[in-house]
Amino acid sequence: MIIIMTPGASDVSIAAVTQRLETMGLKAHLSRGIHQTVIGAIGDERRINETGLEALPEVDRIVRVMRPYKFVSREGRDHGSVVEVCGIPVGGQQIQVIAGPCSVETPAQMEEVATAVVAAGCRMMRGGAFKPRTSPYAFQGVGVEGLVMMKEAAKRHGLPIVTELLDVRMLDTFLEYGVDVIQIGTRNMQNFELLKEVGRTHTPVVLKRGFSATISEWLMAAEYIAAAGNHNIIFCERGVRSFEDAYRNMLDVTAVPVLKRETHLPVIIDPSHAGGKAWMVPALARAAIAAGADGLLVEMHPRPVEAWSDADQALSPTELNALMVELRGIATVLGRTL
Amino acid sequence: MIIIMTPGASDVSIAAVTQRLETMGLKAHLSRGIHQTVIGAIGDERRINETGLEALPEVDRIVRVMRPYKFVSREGRDHGSVVEVCGIPVGGQQIQVIAGPCSVETPAQMEEVATAVVAAGCRMMRGGAFKPRTSPYAFQGVGVEGLVMMKEAAKRHGLPIVTELLDVRMLDTFLEYGVDVIQIGTRNMQNFELLKEVGRTHTPVVLKRGFSATISEWLMAAEYIAAAGNHNIIFCERGVRSFEDAYRNMLDVTAVPVLKRETHLPVIIDPSHAGGKAWMVPALARAAIAAGADGLLVEMHPRPVEAWSDADQALSPTELNALMVELRGIATVLGRTL
Amino acid sequence: MIIIMTPGASDVSIAAVTQRLETMGLKAHLSRGIHQTVIGAIGDERRINETGLEALPEVDRIVRVMRPYKFVSREGRDHGSVVEVCGIPVGGQQIQVIAGPCSVETPAQMEEVATAVVAAGCRMMRGGAFKPRTSPYAFQGVGVEGLVMMKEAAKRHGLPIVTELLDVRMLDTFLEYGVDVIQIGTRNMQNFELLKEVGRTHTPVVLKRGFSATISEWLMAAEYIAAAGNHNIIFCERGVRSFEDAYRNMLDVTAVPVLKRETHLPVIIDPSHAGGKAWMVPALARAAIAAGADGLLVEMHPRPVEAWSDADQALSPTELNALMVELRGIATVLGRTL
Amino acid sequence: MIIIMTPGASDVSIAAVTQRLETMGLKAHLSRGIHQTVIGAIGDERRINETGLEALPEVDRIVRVMRPYKFVSREGRDHGSVVEVCGIPVGGQQIQVIAGPCSVETPAQMEEVATAVVAAGCRMMRGGAFKPRTSPYAFQGVGVEGLVMMKEAAKRHGLPIVTELLDVRMLDTFLEYGVDVIQIGTRNMQNFELLKEVGRTHTPVVLKRGFSATISEWLMAAEYIAAAGNHNIIFCERGVRSFEDAYRNMLDVTAVPVLKRETHLPVIIDPSHAGGKAWMVPALARAAIAAGADGLLVEMHPRPVEAWSDADQALSPTELNALMVELRGIATVLGRTL
Repeated sequence: MIIIMTPGASDVSIAAVTQRLETMGLKAHLSRGIHQTVIGAIGDERRINETGLEALPEVDRIVRVMRPYKFVSREGRDHGSVVEVCGIPVGGQQIQVIAGPCSVETPAQMEEVATAVVAAGCRMMRGGAFKPRTSPYAFQGVGVEGLVMMKEAAKRHGLPIVTELLDVRMLDTFLEYGVDVIQIGTRNMQNFELLKEVGRTHTPVVLKRGFSATISEWLMAAEYIAAAGNHNIIFCERGVRSFEDAYRNMLDVTAVPVLKRETHLPVIIDPSHAGGKAWMVPALARAAIAAGADGLLVEMHPRPVEAWSDADQALSPTELNALMVELRGIATVLGRTL
Repeated sequence: MIIIMTPGASDVSIAAVTQRLETMGLKAHLSRGIHQTVIGAIGDERRINETGLEALPEVDRIVRVMRPYKFVSREGRDHGSVVEVCGIPVGGQQIQVIAGPCSVETPAQMEEVATAVVAAGCRMMRGGAFKPRTSPYAFQGVGVEGLVMMKEAAKRHGLPIVTELLDVRMLDTFLEYGVDVIQIGTRNMQNFELLKEVGRTHTPVVLKRGFSATISEWLMAAEYIAAAGNHNIIFCERGVRSFEDAYRNMLDVTAVPVLKRETHLPVIIDPSHAGGKAWMVPALARAAIAAGADGLLVEMHPRPVEAWSDADQALSPTELNALMVELRGIATVLGRTL
Repeated sequence: MIIIMTPGASDVSIAAVTQRLETMGLKAHLSRGIHQTVIGAIGDERRINETGLEALPEVDRIVRVMRPYKFVSREGRDHGSVVEVCGIPVGGQQIQVIAGPCSVETPAQMEEVATAVVAAGCRMMRGGAFKPRTSPYAFQGVGVEGLVMMKEAAKRHGLPIVTELLDVRMLDTFLEYGVDVIQIGTRNMQNFELLKEVGRTHTPVVLKRGFSATISEWLMAAEYIAAAGNHNIIFCERGVRSFEDAYRNMLDVTAVPVLKRETHLPVIIDPSHAGGKAWMVPALARAAIAAGADGLLVEMHPRPVEAWSDADQALSPTELNALMVELRGIATVLGRTL
Repeated sequence: MIIIMTPGASDVSIAAVTQRLETMGLKAHLSRGIHQTVIGAIGDERRINETGLEALPEVDRIVRVMRPYKFVSREGRDHGSVVEVCGIPVGGQQIQVIAGPCSVETPAQMEEVATAVVAAGCRMMRGGAFKPRTSPYAFQGVGVEGLVMMKEAAKRHGLPIVTELLDVRMLDTFLEYGVDVIQIGTRNMQNFELLKEVGRTHTPVVLKRGFSATISEWLMAAEYIAAAGNHNIIFCERGVRSFEDAYRNMLDVTAVPVLKRETHLPVIIDPSHAGGKAWMVPALARAAIAAGADGLLVEMHPRPVEAWSDADQALSPTELNALMVELRGIATVLGRTL
C-alpha cells in the first residue's frame, strides 16, 4: 500500500499516517520527493480492508500494490486449472460449447434440444427453469418442474446440465434434482449470500459478470465462492453496459486475455446475451474462441421463433452446427480441440 | 407496439407479423410508407412480454409505445404519493434527511449518532448491520446485534431506523426487531426474490438504483415490489458507473426530474456513496435538494476517521449541522420545509 | 512517479528500471515489500511524458504522483481566478447566466433574444452561427452573417456574445467581428490545433467538456490553451455519455466540486444540452448553482417550437424569467449574487 | 417517422402535429390505440432534420424509421465495396494488416520498420508524424519531416503509407508528400470541417471511431466524407470508453458484424489502442479477424522499449511475425486470405 500525501503536507500529518500504519501492523517507509511525500506501507496489505487512511488530513490518495484476491489469483501458478463437470474438462486443451434454450418449456422441447446439442458435437446443455426478468409481468420460468424435464432429457443423452440459481432457498432443490453446474446470473454477481452458499457446495459454478462489474470486482465475487470452499468456478463474460444501442450489451472480449493473466480458472463467453440477436452470435462466438476463451454458453432452440423467451437471440440447430464447424477450425489454429 | 419492417419487406413477411399479432389478441394497423412498412399493434401491449416478433423474417425492430410499469406510474395522477414512516411523511412538502454511519459499531456509537441526528434536525436514522462488501475479507457488519443496538438508541430519541436487507432469510428478523424502513441496496436492485418478499410486507422500502440500471429498469424493479402488494416505495439515486475516476460514482441528478415525471413515488438521493468523499457531500446534497429530491440518505459518524467502514465519506456532526442550514435555505426557495 | 514491480521481480529487472530513471534525470528510491518491490522516482515527473517504463520486464504498473497540469492547477492558490468578459466577472461572487438560442436565425430573432436576455437579468448572450451537426444533411448554421446579426443586436443591448468556433481558419473572422467569448464545443475539446490557436489570443474561451472526457483530460485540454498564453478559460460541463436513454446526456454535477478543488478557473454548466428537454432545464440549472457553479449557458428562444434547431430544449423568455427568480434565491443562500 | 403522443393527448394537439407534418411535405397517418395515439409520417424523412415536433404539446417522443445515412448504407447492395489503396484491395476476400510504429522517429527507424513490415507479409505501413497527445508537454511528433522519412522508406519497399491528419491546413502538404491513406483519429471523428475537406479529395480515408461515438454517429461522420464526394472510406474500431480500468479502452468487437450489416464499406480494427498493452494485442487481433474484420491497424516497433511514444503497446517484429501466422490460419477457416 502506498499513501500519497498532498503537496506541502505537514510533518504532523505524515506522522499521523505513519502511526496509523504501525497500529495496523505495517511498517512505514518514507520517500520525500521534491513536491510530495509518499509513504510505502510494508507488510501484508491484504489483511487490511478498512484503513481510514483516506480520511486523515493531507492524504491525497491511497494506491494498493497487491491484488486483493488470493484463491482465484494466477500468481505463483504455471498453468490454468481445469474444472471437471462429470468428467468433462473445462479450462483445458479442449473447448466446451454449452448449448440450449433460454427457457425450459416442455419435456418434448427438452428432448429435441438434447438431441440437437449432441448432434452438434456439444457436451453440455443449458436451459433456464427460473428466469430473472426485468418485468414482474414477464414469464418467470416453469420452475422446479423444469429441472426435472431438463435433467431427464439430458440424462438420456449423457449431458450434464447448467442452469441458473436465483434464490438461496432453492439451492438444496438444485442439488437434489442433480443440477451439474450452477449458474450465477449477471444480476446476482454481487449477491454475496448466494455466493457464500454455493461456495459451501462442491458443484461447479458458472459465475456471470455483472452488468457493469469491473474485472477486479468479478474476481472478488469469485473469491467469495472460493473462500467458502468451492474452487470449481468458471467465469462467464456476457457483455456489459455501454452507451451503444445498436445491440444489447457490449461484449468485452478483452476480458479473456486479462482473466487468463489474472486467474488460473477457466473463462467462457456467452455470445447470445452479449449481442442479443441470433445473427450476431456466430461472429461473437468466433471472436471469443479466437481470443482464447475456454468455451461458450450459447442459446439454441429447436424453432427460435416459437421460443417462450429471447426468441430473437437463439440459434437454430442448423445454425449451431454451422458455427461448430467454424469454431473447430479456429480451435485447431490455436492448438486446441472442440 | 409498433413493428418496423426492413425496407422492401415482402407481403408474406408482413402477413406473418399481422397473424402473430392477432394470435396475441392485438389488432394490426398497417402504414405503408415509401421505403418501409410500419405495423401498429392496437391493444394492451403491457400484457405481452414475449412476442417473438423480432425473430420473424424482415422485422427490423419493435418500438413499445406504452410504459411497462403500472402501479408505480405517474400516469393519471395529479400529485405524488407520500410514504409515511412512523408518521413522518416522505414525498410531501417536507424534505427528510436520513443520517447515520455506514456501519453500526457499538451501543455507545449508536447513542452518539442518534443524539447528533436529532441535534441536526433530522428525523430518521440510518446504519448498516449487514454490509455488502466487494471483498470477502472485509468487515461484513456486526449482524443481528447491530439491529438491537440501532433500534434501542433510535427509540430513545424517537427516530425510525433505515437499514439494509441482504438476505431473504433475514426478513422475518428485520420485522421482529422493528426495522422501520428496509433498504434494498444497489447490488440487489434486481434480486427479484428479495423484491417479491419485501413486496409481501407493508414496511416502507428504500430502493437504491443498481450500479448501471436504467431508470426504466429501476421503475420495473419497484413494480416487482408494488405488484406483490407493497406500495410504500422510496427511490434512492446513489450514483452510477461511469468512465470517470475522479470520484466513486457519477451522481445522476437528472434522474430526479425524470422520476418525478414518471412515478408518483418519492425520490431521495445518497450523496455519500455517489461522491465517495466527505468533502463532495455538501455540494451534491445541495444539488439534490435544488433538483427537487424529497430527501437525502447521508453518512454521518461521530468521528469519521475512526469509522469501521467508509471513513472517508462520512460527515462529522458539525458538518451535518452546517449542511442542514444550507439545505433549509434551498428548501425555502423551492417552497418546501426541512 | 512510482513503479510497482510484479511479485518476485528479479534484481536485473529492478536495476533496469533504476537505470532508466537515472537516464531521465530522476533518482530511484527502492522500497522492498514482502511480496513486491516498489520504486519511487524522485524529481520533476511533469517533464517526463514518455518513459517506456511500462514496457520494461517485470514492471506491473506506473502510478503518477503529481498532477500533470500546471497553469490551470489550483495548487498554491488561495482563491479562484476571475475571468473578465467586457468588464463582467466570471468566477467571482456574482453568478452569470448566459442565455440565447441554439442557432442564430434572423436579425429580428436576435433582437428579440437580446431584449429577453436583458429582461431576465442576464448579462451575456449566446447563439450559434456555425453548428456542428451529427448529420451532413442537417442545418449547419447561417454562417458569418450570423456573427453580424448577433453582434449588432447584442451591442444595442450592451451584451457580450458567446459563440462556437469550429474551424481554425475562421478564428481571424471571429476576432474581426468582435466575438467576446469563443466557445470550444464538446466535439473539439481535443482538437489540439484549435486549442493552440485560441491559446494565442487573449479572448476568453468557454471550453466544453468532451462527450466522454475525464476531468483530467479536460484539465489537460485547458492546459493546451493556457500553455499557449491564454489564461482566460471557463470550463463548461454539458453532460456526458452514459448507458441511460431517458435523456440526452448525463449531467455530471460532481464535476463542479471536483473542478473547484483542482483548478482556479471558473466553472459553468449547460443544462440544456445535458437534459435535452426544456422541462428538465430548471431542475438541472438549480442543481448546478446549488453545487457551486459560477454560471450557466442556457438555451432560450423567443418561440421554442419555431426554433431552427434543438426546439425541444429551449426555454421561452417567460420560463427563463421564472428560473432566474429561483436561481437568485439559491445564490443568496450560498452567499452569492446573480 | 412515427410520432407517439402522450396518453390522453387532445385532438387539438394531434391536429397540431398533423399540420406540422403537412407543412414539411409529409403525409400523416393516424393510428388511435386504446391508450395512446400514434402518428405515422409518410414521405422522405431523411430530408428532414429539424422537425420541432418534440416541442409540440403532448408529443411523447419521435421514432425515426429510416436510417439517416445514404451513401455509406448497405441498403440495396448485394456485397461490400472494396477500397483500393495503390492497387491493394481493402474490404475484399484478402485481409490487410497495416503495421508500423506509433511515431515516426528517424530515417533509420523507418527503414527498419518497412523491412519488418514486408518481412511479416504485411502490405501497408503506418506511422504518426503528427501526434494528438493528451498533454501539451508530451512529444507531439516530428512533423512534416516525418512524412518524408516515412514515404521514402515505404517507397523503397513498395508500401503505401497510412498517417494521421490533425489539421485541415496540413491537408495539401499530406497530398503533396504522397500520403496514400489519410487517417482521421478518434478525437477528430466529429471534426466536421476536417471531414468535409478530406471528402473533397479522392485519397482513401481511415476513419477511426470516436471515444464514445455510437455506431450510428460514426456512420454519419463517414456520410460527411461521402457526401463531399470521397467514397474511399475504411472504418476503424479502436476501443471505446468504459468503466473498466484493467486496460486502456474496451474493444467493441460487436461493431464488426453490425457495420458489415449497416454499411458496404470495409471495417478494420486497431487492437493496439484498444488494449493498450502489447501482450493483449494477439488475442484482440485474432478476435477481430475471427469476427469478420477486413484488416488490422497494428503498432509495431523495431525495439518497443525504445519507442518515443506508446512503448508498452507496440509489438516487436518477431511478435508480429508470430501473430501473422495465427491470423493466416483464422483467415483460411473463414475462406479468406491474408
